[in-house]
Amino acid sequence: MKNPAHTIMQRADVLAAISATPGQVTRTYLSPEHRLANDQLAAWMQQAGLETWQDSVGNQWGRKVSAQPTKPTLILGSHSDTVINAGKYDGNLGVLLAIETLAALAEESFPFHIDVVAFADEEGTRFNTTLIGSSAVAGDFDDRWLAIEDAAGISMRQAMQDFGLVPEQAGDDARSADSVQAYLEAHIEQGPVLENEDRAVGVVTAIAGAKRYQCSIEGMAGHAGTVPIDLRQDALCGAGEVINCIENFAQQQNIVATVGKCEVTNGAVNVIPAQVDFTIDIRSESQQQLEDCCQQMLQQIDAICTRRKLAFMHQTIYQADAAQCAPALQQRWARAIENVTKQPARLLASGAGHDGLAISKLTDIGMLFIRCEKGISHHPAEQVQSSDVDIALKCFIEMVRSFNA
Amino acid sequence: MKNPAHTIMQRADVLAAISATPGQVTRTYLSPEHRLANDQLAAWMQQAGLETWQDSVGNQWGRKVSAQPTKPTLILGSHSDTVINAGKYDGNLGVLLAIETLAALAEESFPFHIDVVAFADEEGTRFNTTLIGSSAVAGDFDDRWLAIEDAAGISMRQAMQDFGLVPEQAGDDARSADSVQAYLEAHIEQGPVLENEDRAVGVVTAIAGAKRYQCSIEGMAGHAGTVPIDLRQDALCGAGEVINCIENFAQQQNIVATVGKCEVTNGAVNVIPAQVDFTIDIRSESQQQLEDCCQQMLQQIDAICTRRKLAFMHQTIYQADAAQCAPALQQRWARAIENVTKQPARLLASGAGHDGLAISKLTDIGMLFIRCEKGISHHPAEQVQSSDVDIALKCFIEMVRSFNA
Repeated sequence: MKNPAHTIMQRADVLAAISATPGQVTRTYLSPEHRLANDQLAAWMQQAGLETWQDSVGNQWGRKVSAQPTKPTLILGSHSDTVINAGKYDGNLGVLLAIETLAALAEESFPFHIDVVAFADEEGTRFNTTLIGSSAVAGDFDDRWLAIEDAAGISMRQAMQDFGLVPEQAGDDARSADSVQAYLEAHIEQGPVLENEDRAVGVVTAIAGAKRYQCSIEGMAGHAGTVPIDLRQDALCGAGEVINCIENFAQQQNIVATVGKCEVTNGAVNVIPAQVDFTIDIRSESQQQLEDCCQQMLQQIDAICTRRKLAFMHQTIYQADAAQCAPALQQRWARAIENVTKQPARLLASGAGHDGLAISKLTDIGMLFIRCEKGISHHPAEQVQSSDVDIALKCFIEMVRSFNA
Repeated sequence: MKNPAHTIMQRADVLAAISATPGQVTRTYLSPEHRLANDQLAAWMQQAGLETWQDSVGNQWGRKVSAQPTKPTLILGSHSDTVINAGKYDGNLGVLLAIETLAALAEESFPFHIDVVAFADEEGTRFNTTLIGSSAVAGDFDDRWLAIEDAAGISMRQAMQDFGLVPEQAGDDARSADSVQAYLEAHIEQGPVLENEDRAVGVVTAIAGAKRYQCSIEGMAGHAGTVPIDLRQDALCGAGEVINCIENFAQQQNIVATVGKCEVTNGAVNVIPAQVDFTIDIRSESQQQLEDCCQQMLQQIDAICTRRKLAFMHQTIYQADAAQCAPALQQRWARAIENVTKQPARLLASGAGHDGLAISKLTDIGMLFIRCEKGISHHPAEQVQSSDVDIALKCFIEMVRSFNA
């Protein structure tokens, strides 16, 4: 019999080939590749004995039907969309693991339906708004999203129609809280912690909350040769101090904060910078810590700019509240890992966002992290080991079986 | 009789209107506006009693002919080209002051020719190489420049032909050292020093030497949410420290250094910066100090990047040696200022480059600085006071008369 981990690795390759750009992996929401991936996933779901359908926003579902359901549905899954020029495993690996988990449990009966979902948009690549698929399932689809246009000027409403969906019905088939007992997801770590500790898998404690700011520092332009240093109001010198302040602050607080974009507006080699635009991304698994840190950090930035006679402007462009993974599900995942690996399980927070952020408003969430090479993700070099996928699959099977106890 | 300072201010407005962009001041080398400006300047030169001609690279000349020249020619001037969306006075004011100086001296005789020159390119706006006009006069026109193309793909050779020049003859009418006794230029300060001290004019001691570097810092990309701060190799955090290091170093050394361009390559709000590109411009009136400072500064940057496990690359993209103004000419300018203003003259270095950089290889140079509002230049807000122009004109007349003593 074929090694199911090999099957998963091969299927990840097949999905990766369903791409808008040959040689790269790019599969965005409501694209022709989304359609092809859903069809392929449905075929594999059917091979695993599942009933399949596509919902009102384009999520692909498969159900292991219970003959006599006495409990709410258990949902397993992840997302099938990607960033531009992505890796093969972010999201997709979790979907394939969920399908293979149910394939392995085909002969076993449960007193509840078990659904596999491939969320159609987690990354937000096309419409710049993330978690569309899982938000719709959780009852949080926002009709205003239909007016958002992609880079080509196509609205989400139009894209849904082109895809064969009915925009007016988007999100109408949201689940109710009492119809679902839990959501379980496996995902690559996208960080270096498991690799550093030589572990195949780990249990996620929480999905970090995040805030993002678009910032601007304004000073005074001047001739690079003629204005003495102490008469300058150099916006970039201010930004340099701010960037290092953010770095030090994050390290002291044991959180992460990142200035990812930074550019001198109309910069010229011989002109003192008058304006610098930059972004800040700051995250914590504790929502309270996140709020406190943002306030303190912005105060420190203000103080730097005031001392330098610079103006500091900022605008919140994104925020996602931290979501705790249910303690009971963390314990179940930990037991499954201990049974499979004969080692105590490693618990760690997720700095990246996941569909669980949206689904946590509907039901308890539990997540398994899988080691990835050098923590690289959102990049063609994203890599996982087949042996780790084998361990993750065994853990997932143990985990689902535990709901039958 | 009309106030000659008012005449100069009005003529600066007339020249400013000869622009490629209505409502802005943009006049580049070998453009139709260059042609129109030369024609206008020639007309004013003729009104001042000068013989006029245009040389092999498009510089506009006027000569107050001496009936019995026994000494080498004295050259007065500045440049008539501008940056894009420039002010009205950078360069142009110096040309207009020189013409009015000779108009005021029309009835006086000198034992040498006095030439006024409007250099056709000082800024380097069109072909990205500066001081074309003055280099040609000094015998340093480089034939390789003819192949340089502007943003529209037009070579300097083609542009010269279109302008009515003969590219093969460019620079053929360079002056010889023994035919010239000195070069005198008045120019706006482009810095805040005279304004801070409430002075109309000052004597330039030297034109600072400059070096410019194109730099790059390379680190490692990573997910902004998942890589702990102390496992990062963040190119922008490194650049931030470098920018502040350069600022502190320049202040300690009492020189100027500027990071004018800075950008995260392919920056994204949620990605740790892998690469930052930036420029450094560093200047000193002492060539030796400039060389020493560049070496020390680059060592400090290397040390920062090494400590942070980042790669630092740099490339020299421009250098101009410092040029001293002749001490005897500094003293003459100082005496002229003291005679006109009844105050001791302020001596100061020029952080900006000027045609004197090129001309200093041909003959002694002497420069007068004129206060400009807030030190602003290369900007529509560039401004000078008519009363300062009046003082500068009187100084210039005194200065030229002193050569007749």
